[in-house]
Amino acid sequence: MILLFTDFGAGGPYLGQIKAVLSAAAPTVPVIDLMADAPAHDPMSAAYLLAAYASEFPHGAVFLAVVDPGVGGERRAAVAEIDGRWFTGPDNGLFEPLLRRARHARAWEIVWRPERLSASFHGRDLLAPIAARLAHGEHPWDEPMWQERPWAAALPLELLRRPEWPDELARIVYFDHFGNATIGMRACTLAETSVLEVAGRRITRARTFGDVPPGTAFWYENANGLAEIAVNQGRADQVLGVAIGSPVAVE
Amino acid sequence: MILLFTDFGAGGPYLGQIKAVLSAAAPTVPVIDLMADAPAHDPMSAAYLLAAYASEFPHGAVFLAVVDPGVGGERRAAVAEIDGRWFTGPDNGLFEPLLRRARHARAWEIVWRPERLSASFHGRDLLAPIAARLAHGEHPWDEPMWQERPWAAALPLELLRRPEWPDELARIVYFDHFGNATIGMRACTLAETSVLEVAGRRITRARTFGDVPPGTAFWYENANGLAEIAVNQGRADQVLGVAIGSPVAVE
Amino acid sequence: MILLFTDFGAGGPYLGQIKAVLSAAAPTVPVIDLMADAPAHDPMSAAYLLAAYASEFPHGAVFLAVVDPGVGGERRAAVAEIDGRWFTGPDNGLFEPLLRRARHARAWEIVWRPERLSASFHGRDLLAPIAARLAHGEHPWDEPMWQERPWAAALPLELLRRPEWPDELARIVYFDHFGNATIGMRACTLAETSVLEVAGRRITRARTFGDVPPGTAFWYENANGLAEIAVNQGRADQVLGVAIGSPVAVE
Repeated sequence: MILLFTDFGAGGPYLGQIKAVLSAAAPTVPVIDLMADAPAHDPMSAAYLLAAYASEFPHGAVFLAVVDPGVGGERRAAVAEIDGRWFTGPDNGLFEPLLRRARHARAWEIVWRPERLSASFHGRDLLAPIAARLAHGEHPWDEPMWQERPWAAALPLELLRRPEWPDELARIVYFDHFGNATIGMRACTLAETSVLEVAGRRITRARTFGDVPPGTAFWYENANGLAEIAVNQGRADQVLGVAIGSPVAVE
Repeated sequence: MILLFTDFGAGGPYLGQIKAVLSAAAPTVPVIDLMADAPAHDPMSAAYLLAAYASEFPHGAVFLAVVDPGVGGERRAAVAEIDGRWFTGPDNGLFEPLLRRARHARAWEIVWRPERLSASFHGRDLLAPIAARLAHGEHPWDEPMWQERPWAAALPLELLRRPEWPDELARIVYFDHFGNATIGMRACTLAETSVLEVAGRRITRARTFGDVPPGTAFWYENANGLAEIAVNQGRADQVLGVAIGSPVAVE
Repeated sequence: MILLFTDFGAGGPYLGQIKAVLSAAAPTVPVIDLMADAPAHDPMSAAYLLAAYASEFPHGAVFLAVVDPGVGGERRAAVAEIDGRWFTGPDNGLFEPLLRRARHARAWEIVWRPERLSASFHGRDLLAPIAARLAHGEHPWDEPMWQERPWAAALPLELLRRPEWPDELARIVYFDHFGNATIGMRACTLAETSVLEVAGRRITRARTFGDVPPGTAFWYENANGLAEIAVNQGRADQVLGVAIGSPVAVE
């Protein structure tokens, strides 16, 4: 199974072009849009989302993760095996929360280059062919049958890490289609009595929408374990007037 | 074939997570996004859309329908067999127009509970595993091979019904990508000469866009049999200034 | 492989209904959303995008292309074989740039009509069944096994052409999810020193985002060979204040 986690948007041509590459190279592998609207150009916010989603997928799942404002620059294209799942993407911190919480991890740099490598779309040209190979069970340490040299070189994990990032990210990292505001903090790290302060409002916890009056903002543990602010029968994005990146304080 | 009919939005993580469950549980079954932008938190408007789309699908098709503002509350999770097609979703009226027009229908409550049941995402945790079983030909009345107790209990159809709802819903129920305004009324219940009144405008019927001058609003029978208001070379949502739920009067 | 290139939007019911037809008629053929947000009601802008994307797909690929403001009117539904790939869609110029750059092309009119042909959704009712047949290797000149008469009649290529259209379209034809503004001109037809003038601004070329200061607009060759205007760490659509169709001058 290949999971696409990107900031490309659902409608445009980029996901389709990646899927065409994957379909040709790995026609029997299911490809699933896990998220097409990850925080654009914001690997830090995206990283805490990816870590929240990834753990529910089976061992061997391959994540093609592209939130990559540095594409075409000096950044490396990486492959990481983290607790039995495979991740390919840029070295910009996108895998930091996963690595920090991992029991076992290894990493490689993708040293193979395709005949055509565009400056702005490594997701299609570089990462998708590698994701297809990983999904077929090929390992970075295998001698490739399709070229003389290995396609990957060992990469010190430190080069993927961001030790200065927090364990939990006290920011809004996502707004869903309903306007709910996801926070980069796992709800299990907060107390039942924790009060979140966002944009001057103090927000208390509830279990679900029906537990508060219409129009009231509350926070709850969302279905992926993150803290999330919602408004019963309303839109938190409009009620709070905040944006992705807005800070959250915990009392 | 499993059809996803939700108000989750196309870009976000929810559809991908449901598809991952379905792909693991029913890897050979095609899964199709029938609609990802059903009217949010509005089961009544969504119900008349679902009824318009469902009839074209073959017998045995499985619909996973989630427009579910009461998730996490007291509402039941249901399975209904309606004229040879299967539907799973909440008991909030989403299947009322289908049931009212049906020749044959039966219903069950899903009494099985997964090990992990989030408060806010029964589509992934409860309905998707059941949809996968239905798509594999398992019936609610079968003795399950995978647990000791049946996963479903007979549910009186009355508990899914909303007898107070109208046969045709005289409201705007959807805006498509072009700004066309779909109405919850089947065009076959209207006369060729019917005039629709919306937001103070009187709108007459035409067969298609080319039959009226540019900028003119008209109504027509859309490709799913519903009445729909459009503007030739324009956007009905902007021209009319209406919203989902806005009333439509028939003269 | 069937590629869907439409202006239908990613969330709504239209793509799902087309995919349901394709899944029933060609269950083993991969179907990929190449683009769901092609310029709405604008076959000319869409045509230069389609030509930029199509060439990377393998021979035998089938494109179902619907940007079709004239649906339900007098326009023809066509099939074209262009350099080994198949295209089906309206005769409104959508294939003109492809045909102009082709080495080999032939065309047919779809003369078959389904039992149910809606006035507004030929993509589902007429083109999808034909796309499924093309993807199965059926040719327009084959004697069909499924009806007495051929489903296609030879169509002079001239009827698909728009000789008055330019070789390169000096207009904004698309905004992607990041706000980048794609131009209907192949970058290879411009000089490294070409300056593009849009909405009174003079924009010079860079290789990629990191090569200009934050907030600066530049143009570059996008991953499909078209000229594209972007803003480092910003949105070109907001910075430039332009719309699809806005003219671009080349100095």
